[in-house]
Amino acid sequence: MSVRYFMQLSYDGTHFCGWQVQPDAPSVQETIEQALATLLRKPTSLMGCGRTDTGVHAREFFAHFDAETDWDSAACTNFAYKLNCILPSAISIARIFPVAPDAHARFDAVERTYRYYISTHKNAFNFAHSYLFLKPLDVDKMNEAAEILLATEDFTSFSKLHTQVNNNRCEVRSAFWKREGDLLIFEITANRFLRNMVRAIVGTLMQVGEGKLSLEEFRQVIGRKDRCAAGASVPAHALFLEKVRYTFV
Amino acid sequence: MSVRYFMQLSYDGTHFCGWQVQPDAPSVQETIEQALATLLRKPTSLMGCGRTDTGVHAREFFAHFDAETDWDSAACTNFAYKLNCILPSAISIARIFPVAPDAHARFDAVERTYRYYISTHKNAFNFAHSYLFLKPLDVDKMNEAAEILLATEDFTSFSKLHTQVNNNRCEVRSAFWKREGDLLIFEITANRFLRNMVRAIVGTLMQVGEGKLSLEEFRQVIGRKDRCAAGASVPAHALFLEKVRYTFV
Repeated sequence: MSVRYFMQLSYDGTHFCGWQVQPDAPSVQETIEQALATLLRKPTSLMGCGRTDTGVHAREFFAHFDAETDWDSAACTNFAYKLNCILPSAISIARIFPVAPDAHARFDAVERTYRYYISTHKNAFNFAHSYLFLKPLDVDKMNEAAEILLATEDFTSFSKLHTQVNNNRCEVRSAFWKREGDLLIFEITANRFLRNMVRAIVGTLMQVGEGKLSLEEFRQVIGRKDRCAAGASVPAHALFLEKVRYTFV
Repeated sequence: MSVRYFMQLSYDGTHFCGWQVQPDAPSVQETIEQALATLLRKPTSLMGCGRTDTGVHAREFFAHFDAETDWDSAACTNFAYKLNCILPSAISIARIFPVAPDAHARFDAVERTYRYYISTHKNAFNFAHSYLFLKPLDVDKMNEAAEILLATEDFTSFSKLHTQVNNNRCEVRSAFWKREGDLLIFEITANRFLRNMVRAIVGTLMQVGEGKLSLEEFRQVIGRKDRCAAGASVPAHALFLEKVRYTFV
């Protein structure tokens, strides 16, 4: 009889084509599936909590897999240790734990939090994980615009065109900018995110911060429900999936 | 008439052969000297506050150079900005400021602080800047041993052999371990450091932490004044020069 396990992990997305398996490109999913196959001695597929784009990082990510084993807590820790030993440095398994047979890493995730990191000064250590932007940004204005997102239902203006989702409605529960030393961080939490949504929102909020877009125009961008109305996407290497929430984890 | 300037900078040492110019290897010094020559249109040599080894990082580093200019504060900021634009991401100039004509980045530095970072769990984001060590370490014992360094005068046991220094005496002013999340950090401050000294001290303190060396044996290692008596050096990629102190900066 097989048991379903959840895996909590983190990864530096710099050298991956994202979470999802792709032909001829190294994905996080494929890398871990190969390690699972090596240790479990059979092909094992992983279902992730979402799909991060090429270059995007995850400080917290969940995935589930089924195995014909019945591990107690010590055996789970031991298996995570072995996985870490054969996985590259950029992927780290934090823990593995058994869940109900119908628990689902993607469909049961009720909330996700992303962060986008902007360096306001050149930083010798953080350049691979933050977006260097030296022009002044009006953070108060960007926070006023971010508040508008809380009252927004349809995020079509911030969604990549032609994606296969039924609708573009999201419930944004918090969205704000904060300073931490030389970093300017945007944090957004919602029940779901559309493809490219956070990077399109950040790019458009930065136009507000630069004074290129008024709050009224930002409202109009959302109302037009047209991706072309919004600003350009910011680079992927500064985006982190920070948290994924389940009711049972 | 030429004016002497101090430059405060930081660098990620991962892809450099250290600070000092070496034949056929990219050094931080040579990289910045080339940028200075480009902007000042003449060969300009830099004197650093010390020499970091291959792969060692500096969160704070000072160097001086002479230029036939007389920049006010705005011109200094502007020159630092231009340097940052042409320097690689791994080198960041924090500021440039005029000093007395006889001020010396190396000889006037009165105190230096280094930190060594140990990851006690696999960390997807910090692997390039910390030493992954999964075996248990007795931090209290390592702190007791670190205290012995404060009463030590001769550090021959922790110095690379055959270096061209007059003596191996150092005045260690503080030395301690502390935990920060999944990191275990050793911080040491002294008036001067011998070549390889911090990494040899950390390697030997870790033997104490693993129970392979008693406090009494640690004392004997110091007393023997023989590098072979001490433990192995730990890897360079987890060592940071954190602070350099001058009386006039």
